Amino acid sequence: MKRRDFIRGAAYLAVGTAAVACGLKRGGRVKDTSETIPAQEQDRSPRPYQPIESARFKLSWEPFELSLIHSFTVSGSSRTTTPDVLVRLEYDGYTGYGEASLPPYLGHTVDSVCKFLSKVDLSSFRDPFRLTEIMDYVNSLSDGDAPAKAAVDIALHDLFGKLMGQPLWRIKGLDPTATPNTSFTIGMDTPENMAAKTKEVEGKYKILKVKLGAGNDLAMIDAIRSVSSLPIAVDVNQGWKDRMKALYEMYALKERGVVLVEQPLPKNNFKDLAWLSERAPLPIFADEAVQNLADLKRISHLYNGVNIKLMKCGGLLEAEKMKAYAKASGLKVMLGCMTETSCAISAAAQISPGVDFADLDGNLLISNDPFEGVKIIDGKITLNNLPGLGLTVAG
Amino acid sequence: MKRRDFIRGAAYLAVGTAAVACGLKRGGRVKDTSETIPAQEQDRSPRPYQPIESARFKLSWEPFELSLIHSFTVSGSSRTTTPDVLVRLEYDGYTGYGEASLPPYLGHTVDSVCKFLSKVDLSSFRDPFRLTEIMDYVNSLSDGDAPAKAAVDIALHDLFGKLMGQPLWRIKGLDPTATPNTSFTIGMDTPENMAAKTKEVEGKYKILKVKLGAGNDLAMIDAIRSVSSLPIAVDVNQGWKDRMKALYEMYALKERGVVLVEQPLPKNNFKDLAWLSERAPLPIFADEAVQNLADLKRISHLYNGVNIKLMKCGGLLEAEKMKAYAKASGLKVMLGCMTETSCAISAAAQISPGVDFADLDGNLLISNDPFEGVKIIDGKITLNNLPGLGLTVAG
Repeated sequence: MKRRDFIRGAAYLAVGTAAVACGLKRGGRVKDTSETIPAQEQDRSPRPYQPIESARFKLSWEPFELSLIHSFTVSGSSRTTTPDVLVRLEYDGYTGYGEASLPPYLGHTVDSVCKFLSKVDLSSFRDPFRLTEIMDYVNSLSDGDAPAKAAVDIALHDLFGKLMGQPLWRIKGLDPTATPNTSFTIGMDTPENMAAKTKEVEGKYKILKVKLGAGNDLAMIDAIRSVSSLPIAVDVNQGWKDRMKALYEMYALKERGVVLVEQPLPKNNFKDLAWLSERAPLPIFADEAVQNLADLKRISHLYNGVNIKLMKCGGLLEAEKMKAYAKASGLKVMLGCMTETSCAISAAAQISPGVDFADLDGNLLISNDPFEGVKIIDGKITLNNLPGLGLTVAG
Repeated sequence: MKRRDFIRGAAYLAVGTAAVACGLKRGGRVKDTSETIPAQEQDRSPRPYQPIESARFKLSWEPFELSLIHSFTVSGSSRTTTPDVLVRLEYDGYTGYGEASLPPYLGHTVDSVCKFLSKVDLSSFRDPFRLTEIMDYVNSLSDGDAPAKAAVDIALHDLFGKLMGQPLWRIKGLDPTATPNTSFTIGMDTPENMAAKTKEVEGKYKILKVKLGAGNDLAMIDAIRSVSSLPIAVDVNQGWKDRMKALYEMYALKERGVVLVEQPLPKNNFKDLAWLSERAPLPIFADEAVQNLADLKRISHLYNGVNIKLMKCGGLLEAEKMKAYAKASGLKVMLGCMTETSCAISAAAQISPGVDFADLDGNLLISNDPFEGVKIIDGKITLNNLPGLGLTVAG
């Protein structure tokens, strides 16, 4: 057989000496090749989008206050809204959506986001597919501003997928059925109310999350346990101060079916974190300690896993780098969120196939979500087939 | 303005109080938004390929002997051909091409590749876009067989891009202008012949590569220097045995415009590598020491960079993980190759934007390349706009 015939896909594959010698005759593959599709069909191809020289980016944004269904309490504060900025990135008639969610304790404000976005000048960029080039520029505009950068990154990815005509998970080669279950957060409250909230969502989730560190930790867990046998992830938000007490508590939590503990000690208490991680009976995840890849590299030896959030790290490109580094380093990966609309939640969900845990319930905690996107079905993150992030404007 | 109007892209953006407060009035962006493209055009979209339930994968392969233009010498052996296996992966009338290149000293053979490929049963897979799922299966079939796995991975990526209708670099969000120059290897020979070979390619490349370790290293470099002032990367292929002599030689090489040294000492001589890397005046790159991500993690502290090759690591998915890990770890990245056709070279080139060095000249060293793909223009890897790997069958 001529080599060119093999390459061109000619409708025969003679079994030559070399082929026999190396087992080509096995498995019926020689016959298969003779059923090759006719040449005239081989060149049919999809009609892909091509960037056009005359198109320009148009970035716009609007503050948007998220209304929380339940008031939200973490160690020391409580609130009923979350400030947010919605972003639109238009190009050649397509629109990508992004979002910056701004829980007040993180220090970003609607003003700081808008100030950053007003500095973003995309007029020199022509090709919306060059994600790395565009985000390198955006990231160079300041040292911080992760939520604002995330908003641009998310909008850019949504636009990218829409121009490709494909959902982002598909563009990334991921298996949409390999998404994790998301935990659902039972907000801090009296034990009775937490038990009631747990009953409210019975049957809807496969794993719960509880914020601890306020002092009555075991009572809260026991209250949930009285009505549910689901695994529980706990987030201490740096709330424990004593390493011995933390260790004791982790043993007690393990007995109660807790499966992981997020940020048990203050993030800068490296010595006690090292001590605890050597002895802890449950995996310890970094949250406040890790904003981005640089942080992850510095502290990966102190933790068993990391909670990656788009609003902390500045978007999907950085989140994917962190996911790759964490996996390569033997750390478990959780994808987390702030209270967010379905926009940022759907963005994180696109890269969720294959991660170990997800805490992507932020959109379920608000009453005024302007988007529909990924769904939680039987507790599992369920991606759709729509292009980009899979968003539609809520009806 | 109503929030829904902002999201839907209505043709106005009233400057409300919040907008003014956060700087929306700046930068002319409010006016921009009033020029929004009419709603009826907003939904126009490309016609993306959708996997069809009835389609099946068809994998076929053929041994193919690469003819070398110059006989190829590394420390201790010389040859004029390289065994190779070409792979085709067909799906729904589309064909992806892959390749396993098998330099004899690496221990893989045409037989071992064909034996591996005959075990690959893709009949249970329906969705050609699920790269990670398919390659997880392929990788699970044996512990080794990196070239055979690379062949499937490359064919799968070519198919993926063709189904998307886009070049792989675009699907990955990369900037096609950010490709590196490739080094061109001046094969081991007498100093006079090496000078002549260098003159032959004058003006075509921006960086040269020389294999050292045969004993007359500096004479070879001086011979090249007598006819060229280009930077030189040297590859010692573990050929130096004494750390002190290696250090001395690196100083001498630096004086002669050498910019990096690959695998100066035997890969398992960790102690001397650590000693050398603390003192070396040039960056030291791992080649033989690093086949895949697991190796990279083990030895990253001993080197300043790593040469990633598809035939060593088993394909693009693994290579990208290595690239991400190396960059995150502060290691420089070189993309390298064996003698290969334009198929595997074009595959590696797809992920070359942003890497520090490339040694992707393997297709330039053979006389019977069945493909055309990426080109070297003014020494620089130049990607094309064709879908997948950008291959055409050579004319």
